[in-house]
Amino acid sequence: MTPGTLYGVGLGPGDPDLITRKAARLIETARVIAYPALAGGDSFARAIAADLIAADAREIVMDVPMTLAREPAQAAYDKGAAEIAGVLEEGEDVVCLCEGDPFFYGSFMYLHARLAGRFTVKVVPGVTSLTACAAQASMPLVARNERLTVLPGPLPEDELTRRIEAAEGVAIMKVGRHLPKLRAVIARLGLLDRAVYVERATLPEEHVCPLAEAPDNAPYFSMILLTKGADPWL
Amino acid sequence: MTPGTLYGVGLGPGDPDLITRKAARLIETARVIAYPALAGGDSFARAIAADLIAADAREIVMDVPMTLAREPAQAAYDKGAAEIAGVLEEGEDVVCLCEGDPFFYGSFMYLHARLAGRFTVKVVPGVTSLTACAAQASMPLVARNERLTVLPGPLPEDELTRRIEAAEGVAIMKVGRHLPKLRAVIARLGLLDRAVYVERATLPEEHVCPLAEAPDNAPYFSMILLTKGADPWL
Repeated sequence: MTPGTLYGVGLGPGDPDLITRKAARLIETARVIAYPALAGGDSFARAIAADLIAADAREIVMDVPMTLAREPAQAAYDKGAAEIAGVLEEGEDVVCLCEGDPFFYGSFMYLHARLAGRFTVKVVPGVTSLTACAAQASMPLVARNERLTVLPGPLPEDELTRRIEAAEGVAIMKVGRHLPKLRAVIARLGLLDRAVYVERATLPEEHVCPLAEAPDNAPYFSMILLTKGADPWL
Repeated sequence: MTPGTLYGVGLGPGDPDLITRKAARLIETARVIAYPALAGGDSFARAIAADLIAADAREIVMDVPMTLAREPAQAAYDKGAAEIAGVLEEGEDVVCLCEGDPFFYGSFMYLHARLAGRFTVKVVPGVTSLTACAAQASMPLVARNERLTVLPGPLPEDELTRRIEAAEGVAIMKVGRHLPKLRAVIARLGLLDRAVYVERATLPEEHVCPLAEAPDNAPYFSMILLTKGADPWL
């Protein structure tokens, strides 16, 4: 029997309207879907795609605990990959739902690493939070020969400082509880008036404001955008 | 009269199926669309969206010359912005078509800079070539706390070297005739076996290969991806 194909499908930043036509078609016709969920809680990925999932589709839920220790999440992806592999071996395709883009800080990479060697895996790119936040903040990111750096908020202060100094466009992901540190770094560089804070971009509860006015305790799905360039010649 | 709204609509990397549902709806219902074209030639943006454009829609074409001098392109965007402004002032919306994402090295920034102060401008983010190339190359870009750097190919060698050394994920845009220089830099860093070349991602004429085997004379719509990380714990 020919094994099924695993699709890693990017759903975009949250607004179901920002799902691509290709992703929508794959989800609508899927007989088996898979997605991560916060252990014991909701799945953001499933919520984005909810209106597209067939009522009789089989759903493989990977309960991923949000802990700093790696082992519990590893175990959740091991278990999910095994269940998905079982479906693929029976000749059935599996559509895995991914917030944003599967290969841009996406949880799908954990399944890709486990299954790409054994099965056909296809990735459907999605709108990243990076450009969704820029759109919602009306903030052009990079133009012409400018350089863009994408940094995770947990990086140490000295490294953040060096990297923010060295690029025209900067996006800081995974802001969360690191917001006060990040704001202090950006203020010391004299760039506070060029930085914007975006929380839950494209969702009904979206919040966009100058970084100076952002809450100290930001959620995980928040971003800081900063640009010194993106200044197309007028 | 209330002026119309200017929409900057990202179309994704080229496959019309990677247009988002929101962009598709805006284009289908648009009475006036605008897009750049190579002076005297085709418009890639219009080609991507062709099946969605109403037969009786008014089309504003901005003929942008591909010259190193800035003035001829400036003049083309000045002229386009003036024509678009005239439509908006009559209370009509304008949907501007943009390859990829409008704020990620997008030509829409030239209109945004000219019109955002006077009119309501809304941006619909699109799938960037960045993650589309990663998907087509089956190459996870960045995971966990890794850093991503996006660099334009025309940058000087020493700067490229420094920046490639300092990030886990690297994307080099606008490769074109710079390919031999870029390949030499990457080879000297001992990273040639980690670099992939992607040309016209998601289009029928797409070409993906190891950078070592890429053609010396690459088209403008090509990219080099390189990753030292994106290695989720197994």
